[in-house]
Amino acid sequence: MTGTNAFTVDPWSVAEHGLDLSGQARAESVFALSNGHIGLRGNLDEGEPHGLPGTYLNGVYELRPLPYAESGYGYPESGQSVINVTNGKIIRLLVDDEPFDLRYGELLSHHRSLDFRDGLLRREAEWTSPAGRTVKVTSTRLVSLTQRAVAAIEYRVAAVDGPVRIVVQSELVANEQLPTGTHDPRASAVLEAPLLSEAHQADRLKAVLVHRTRYSELRVAAGADHTVEGPDGFDSVAESYPDQGRISVTTVLKPGEELRLVKYIAYGWSATRSLPAVRDQVAAALTAARYTGWDGLVAEQRAYLDDFWATSDIRIDGDVELQQAVRFALFHVLQAGARSEERAIPAKGLTGPGYDGHSFWDTETFVLPVLTYCLPGAVKQALRWRHGTLPMARDRAAQLGLAGAVFPWRTIRGEECSGYWPAGTAAFHIGADIAVAVARYVRSTGDVAFEKEYGLELLVETARMWRSLGHHDAAGRFRIEGVTGPDEYSAVADNNVFTNLMAQTNLVAAAESATRHPMESAALGVDTEETAAWRDAATAMYIPYDEKLGVHPQADGFTDHQAWDFDATPPDKYPLLLHYPYFDLYRKQVVKQADLVLAMQLRGDAFTDEQKARNFAYYERLTVRDSSLSACTQAVMAAEVGQLELAYDYTAEAALMDLHDLGGNTSDGLHMASLAGACIALVSGFGGLRDHGGQLFFRPRLPAGLQGLSFAMMIRESLLHVEITHKQTTYSVRRGGALTLLHEGEELVVGPGEPVSRPMALAEPVERCAQPPGREPARRKQQPGVQVGSGSVEHLQAE
Amino acid sequence: MTGTNAFTVDPWSVAEHGLDLSGQARAESVFALSNGHIGLRGNLDEGEPHGLPGTYLNGVYELRPLPYAESGYGYPESGQSVINVTNGKIIRLLVDDEPFDLRYGELLSHHRSLDFRDGLLRREAEWTSPAGRTVKVTSTRLVSLTQRAVAAIEYRVAAVDGPVRIVVQSELVANEQLPTGTHDPRASAVLEAPLLSEAHQADRLKAVLVHRTRYSELRVAAGADHTVEGPDGFDSVAESYPDQGRISVTTVLKPGEELRLVKYIAYGWSATRSLPAVRDQVAAALTAARYTGWDGLVAEQRAYLDDFWATSDIRIDGDVELQQAVRFALFHVLQAGARSEERAIPAKGLTGPGYDGHSFWDTETFVLPVLTYCLPGAVKQALRWRHGTLPMARDRAAQLGLAGAVFPWRTIRGEECSGYWPAGTAAFHIGADIAVAVARYVRSTGDVAFEKEYGLELLVETARMWRSLGHHDAAGRFRIEGVTGPDEYSAVADNNVFTNLMAQTNLVAAAESATRHPMESAALGVDTEETAAWRDAATAMYIPYDEKLGVHPQADGFTDHQAWDFDATPPDKYPLLLHYPYFDLYRKQVVKQADLVLAMQLRGDAFTDEQKARNFAYYERLTVRDSSLSACTQAVMAAEVGQLELAYDYTAEAALMDLHDLGGNTSDGLHMASLAGACIALVSGFGGLRDHGGQLFFRPRLPAGLQGLSFAMMIRESLLHVEITHKQTTYSVRRGGALTLLHEGEELVVGPGEPVSRPMALAEPVERCAQPPGREPARRKQQPGVQVGSGSVEHLQAE
Repeated sequence: MTGTNAFTVDPWSVAEHGLDLSGQARAESVFALSNGHIGLRGNLDEGEPHGLPGTYLNGVYELRPLPYAESGYGYPESGQSVINVTNGKIIRLLVDDEPFDLRYGELLSHHRSLDFRDGLLRREAEWTSPAGRTVKVTSTRLVSLTQRAVAAIEYRVAAVDGPVRIVVQSELVANEQLPTGTHDPRASAVLEAPLLSEAHQADRLKAVLVHRTRYSELRVAAGADHTVEGPDGFDSVAESYPDQGRISVTTVLKPGEELRLVKYIAYGWSATRSLPAVRDQVAAALTAARYTGWDGLVAEQRAYLDDFWATSDIRIDGDVELQQAVRFALFHVLQAGARSEERAIPAKGLTGPGYDGHSFWDTETFVLPVLTYCLPGAVKQALRWRHGTLPMARDRAAQLGLAGAVFPWRTIRGEECSGYWPAGTAAFHIGADIAVAVARYVRSTGDVAFEKEYGLELLVETARMWRSLGHHDAAGRFRIEGVTGPDEYSAVADNNVFTNLMAQTNLVAAAESATRHPMESAALGVDTEETAAWRDAATAMYIPYDEKLGVHPQADGFTDHQAWDFDATPPDKYPLLLHYPYFDLYRKQVVKQADLVLAMQLRGDAFTDEQKARNFAYYERLTVRDSSLSACTQAVMAAEVGQLELAYDYTAEAALMDLHDLGGNTSDGLHMASLAGACIALVSGFGGLRDHGGQLFFRPRLPAGLQGLSFAMMIRESLLHVEITHKQTTYSVRRGGALTLLHEGEELVVGPGEPVSRPMALAEPVERCAQPPGREPARRKQQPGVQVGSGSVEHLQAE
Repeated sequence: MTGTNAFTVDPWSVAEHGLDLSGQARAESVFALSNGHIGLRGNLDEGEPHGLPGTYLNGVYELRPLPYAESGYGYPESGQSVINVTNGKIIRLLVDDEPFDLRYGELLSHHRSLDFRDGLLRREAEWTSPAGRTVKVTSTRLVSLTQRAVAAIEYRVAAVDGPVRIVVQSELVANEQLPTGTHDPRASAVLEAPLLSEAHQADRLKAVLVHRTRYSELRVAAGADHTVEGPDGFDSVAESYPDQGRISVTTVLKPGEELRLVKYIAYGWSATRSLPAVRDQVAAALTAARYTGWDGLVAEQRAYLDDFWATSDIRIDGDVELQQAVRFALFHVLQAGARSEERAIPAKGLTGPGYDGHSFWDTETFVLPVLTYCLPGAVKQALRWRHGTLPMARDRAAQLGLAGAVFPWRTIRGEECSGYWPAGTAAFHIGADIAVAVARYVRSTGDVAFEKEYGLELLVETARMWRSLGHHDAAGRFRIEGVTGPDEYSAVADNNVFTNLMAQTNLVAAAESATRHPMESAALGVDTEETAAWRDAATAMYIPYDEKLGVHPQADGFTDHQAWDFDATPPDKYPLLLHYPYFDLYRKQVVKQADLVLAMQLRGDAFTDEQKARNFAYYERLTVRDSSLSACTQAVMAAEVGQLELAYDYTAEAALMDLHDLGGNTSDGLHMASLAGACIALVSGFGGLRDHGGQLFFRPRLPAGLQGLSFAMMIRESLLHVEITHKQTTYSVRRGGALTLLHEGEELVVGPGEPVSRPMALAEPVERCAQPPGREPARRKQQPGVQVGSGSVEHLQAE
């Protein structure tokens, strides 16, 4: 875990000065714009140079065969890979017939910034062509949060030092050539030329291309329309070809004069609709966008985000770097979930092709807990997507000989796409992760209509799966064997504590929901015998415990295993999965990512305080964090067991995962779960929020480095605001009716206009736990709390 | 397990009357001829119709990529597949310009037989062409056991009912078109046209083709030379092309006249030798074969086999079907091992392309124990092959982070070719299987020179692997975790009893051998600290035991697992691996093949008699025998626990695996381990032979269906003969000096010419154990003991 910050620290934006070609792919992820439906990587307007060009539409994928050296029953035969669709963001520029290409000529200045409050990606470049003519290019890009199918770019070019002939080519380009792939299994399988042309048209300032994917048979249309303003008029030409649409605009600018072009881009896709229908859908979106106009789109975007920040901001006093990081995180989580609308939220959002564009348990376990309290509508959409995949999940369960539904470990459309079952299909906890997300959403929103129509069925089908997956042993204990928990350095073990506890929650939640809705559950074939069987299995759930060590083994036998030889593991052998065989990792005590520790966060009621402290210390020295889904959880539990400085370090690591490229693969896309996890680390770690019971529980604690922490939460119709300082915590209701919550176990009723404050509890100093050598949380060079103005902040492996 | 016997029952041969085209591939395996170096499937002389054409050279393979849907560190990238080399056995016949093809015209009679005493495959066919002309074709085929590079065919064609123009085309055909593959993972990956022509020549009656494989870069030469005798002379033409050599002989036969052609076939291959060298090597072999002549080759073959049967025959009184089967078994085991000479003995011998032509643990665990006592030189060769692969095994160990050597789970040349590590690399017991075979060979032959030069190093490098694979726990127990035992319906478990006991034997054997040979072991870097560490690990070896059930779990936690729902498993769902996912099989109590039960056979000293009986009964009801490597072991242990009729049934199942095609895949090649296992079932089951200690132990028992059982064993320079009847057992030394052995625990010294008899011990009647429903051993319709003269014997699933 090393990384450097190429970006300026600012509480409300992320900015880049100059252009580092080697770090371009990473910047393209950081500057990616998305609304959950369309995703545009932060590629330069002119297309080249690029790190990795990327334009994605949520749900548009291509099928590819999954090969096996030795095949087996139930192995998925076909995978789904996100594809780079028609690139609508290209605006090339010729300056006196020389292409505006930053690799040539002289770049006098280059500045890009992404503002979290208005959602605009701004760029300013001043460039002297090889022939010596200087221009200033200013572009502003948005992907509309209010008009789902629309993106737009305002592009301005000004002559600086003399008259110049300008040609602006605004393009749609399909089947862009992509850089060749790497051998890192976390990267995407690059699919070359996945789009087959179906139609193309160009007229005046508008062009539309329609393509179809070869195997997944999805029809994709992309269109662009423009408004152009120049000093003395201009000429324009429209052309289209199977893989290209081009609007060329030309004029001559005198010094100080400017050509302004607004490009409205629209996308549409469908697996079923006809070519004319999809084409017209895109044309309609363009028409609406032009009607709204650039200023209108910008204003809508700002209004949407104002609303979002009012209900969602996490404010940090005393650490501007972390403040920036958490707002960056919230902004990208919003972008991933805002308009995904019955499609999955991928692990990388729509910011890159990493993990083939698949969604995992990350969504339900890390992303949805954040969205539940700030954008609950997005949670509903994401869970409705899961509901829509129930037919596939039921088929999969049947194929595996199980009842109910088995959701895929990784997928785009809903079919299992994992090609390695011990770390895929065997991770059955995905079912409970979904169920827990359903229960949380229903509890916090009171959305009974959703529960009846979608939630109940998800709970019932996952409970059925658990009931058939587990069994009662001779002693009557309910056991779940041969499954894989969150930690991917163990697999196919018996009675994984996380899995068993999550299944227990799932079974109880299903029984309770069925009882609440007898008509709807009867329609699903649920009777009282079945709910009784669920309750019984939950009550009898076996949770292994190592009496000798006084800790919970992650799964049966785990604590008997040989310890990983950390001293013999040099730093360059991380991540371990790239340097050691699974057989060796699985059989030893080494943990990729929080597993039992995550169980203690999500099911804190199942552990005593002493167990939590002992377990945390035990797993802390085994956990290497080769996954980005770990630091946030360790932050939360470190805070709970009183190790606030450690929690602070983990929080920073989770928050800076992408801004500092700690995993070294931000180039493939942002780590949505880690970004969401940074929010969780703050709210559930220092805020002490727990929501696994019927009530919200807070137990605020602040590390010395922070002066204050405040955050807001939407709960049903009310907006709760929590403000934590070292002195006290104040709860206030800023919208809606009174709320009841637990503060350190004390029930508080907080009415509108009636803030309630409680003094900060005294924290016992606790010795900081040790991590495997070299695997301490990434520490920041500068003291947190010191405002940093430039991109010089670095992480060190250890102090 | 269903099957039918298409073959006549006879104690010394297997014969087929008529021709069943649908069963052709199976008959080609049964009638395969091999000397361990060359393998010829029993294809018809004229090449077509065929089930699966096959000509194999031990060690000739092609590389193919091993694909992974999700790759991982240490996964083999390249596999090795046996290839069908140049077919030298084709002799086509034209009868008045009509091809002799049994699919056309009228087949008046067709008879094939394989005689175990002379090793000849005889064929007689009388056929009337579509034009009405009748000929009689008689061919006799051999693969020489004395001239390793040579096969030969005597081909005679006689006119029956009128003058007929005959053309005999004797061919060499490379890159034969093969039938397309199936999706059964047990079948071979068919490699199309694997041979690239390098040279071809034909002159007079001789032709030679030289080819090279594309990726493995092996040079393969095949040649044929002929002698021809006809009534009135004949014409001949020699032709050669890149993939074809052809000698055409033509004459006109009057009724009663005969054309006789003897075809001498030779093969040579090399990874290093030049084209001329390999071509000349084949020509030399042809010259030698012609010099020996057909009658000479036949006489040498007979003499070789006379010797073999004198030291190796297993005689059974009272069950001619089983008698035939066990001699069939011995004959094919001999064919697989006789001249393999520093090459592997594949799981299918050289009888078919099944399992890609790979060798597994089958060789050391099932085939070598049989060969040790009848053809010890072949064992030496097989183990020298393993020794020759030590550099690859050391590299593999280093790649996996282990000391010593890790031998491949499946391979042709020595590199790991398993594409699914939980059932490949994780099966570390292969190392101990090799070590135990080394120790057995050294003990029974006293071959100290082998031990010093080869055996010691194999023992040392495997012991080093075990020492680094396992670890001592807090209680001081030595544990081996995350490995896979023989049972492939469990994987990656802790403390598999079979593995731990075999590792224990390995560690002790290495320490003892190192102590015996201090100079040689010092040269390998072994010191007394290292041997002490081996002994200590062996002494501290952890063997899990379930006190509550009073049985040994196959591995940690096994007896806690959910029982497989056998009642809900219909017969057509076997073998389970084709109908249920591994995840389901691994997590439940269901056993593919003897695992703990095999441990009880090979390490009987580690179990009390009571434990054996309880364990046997426990695992019997869980074992489905979806592997052919199970019935023999169950036979041995059934006999030991007194269930003689059950042992008898299992013995018959093992013995008839291929003759009755009980696995349904004899078409891909014979199951060498099951064939060898049939011999083990008789000698170790009813003979009660155990050789895991320093002495040979016998404990004879006979089922009611058998009147007598006798067998011979080579021990050092002596030939021991054991004759068992219901009355008594007689031990006699027929060659060499006196032998000491244990009979029912009593030490007997048997001198030459001084047979010793002991009365049969009284056997307590023991209740027969139950198997999973429908998985009872295949039972024979006829009462065993009734001589059956035709191919009507069938197996039933249950009575």
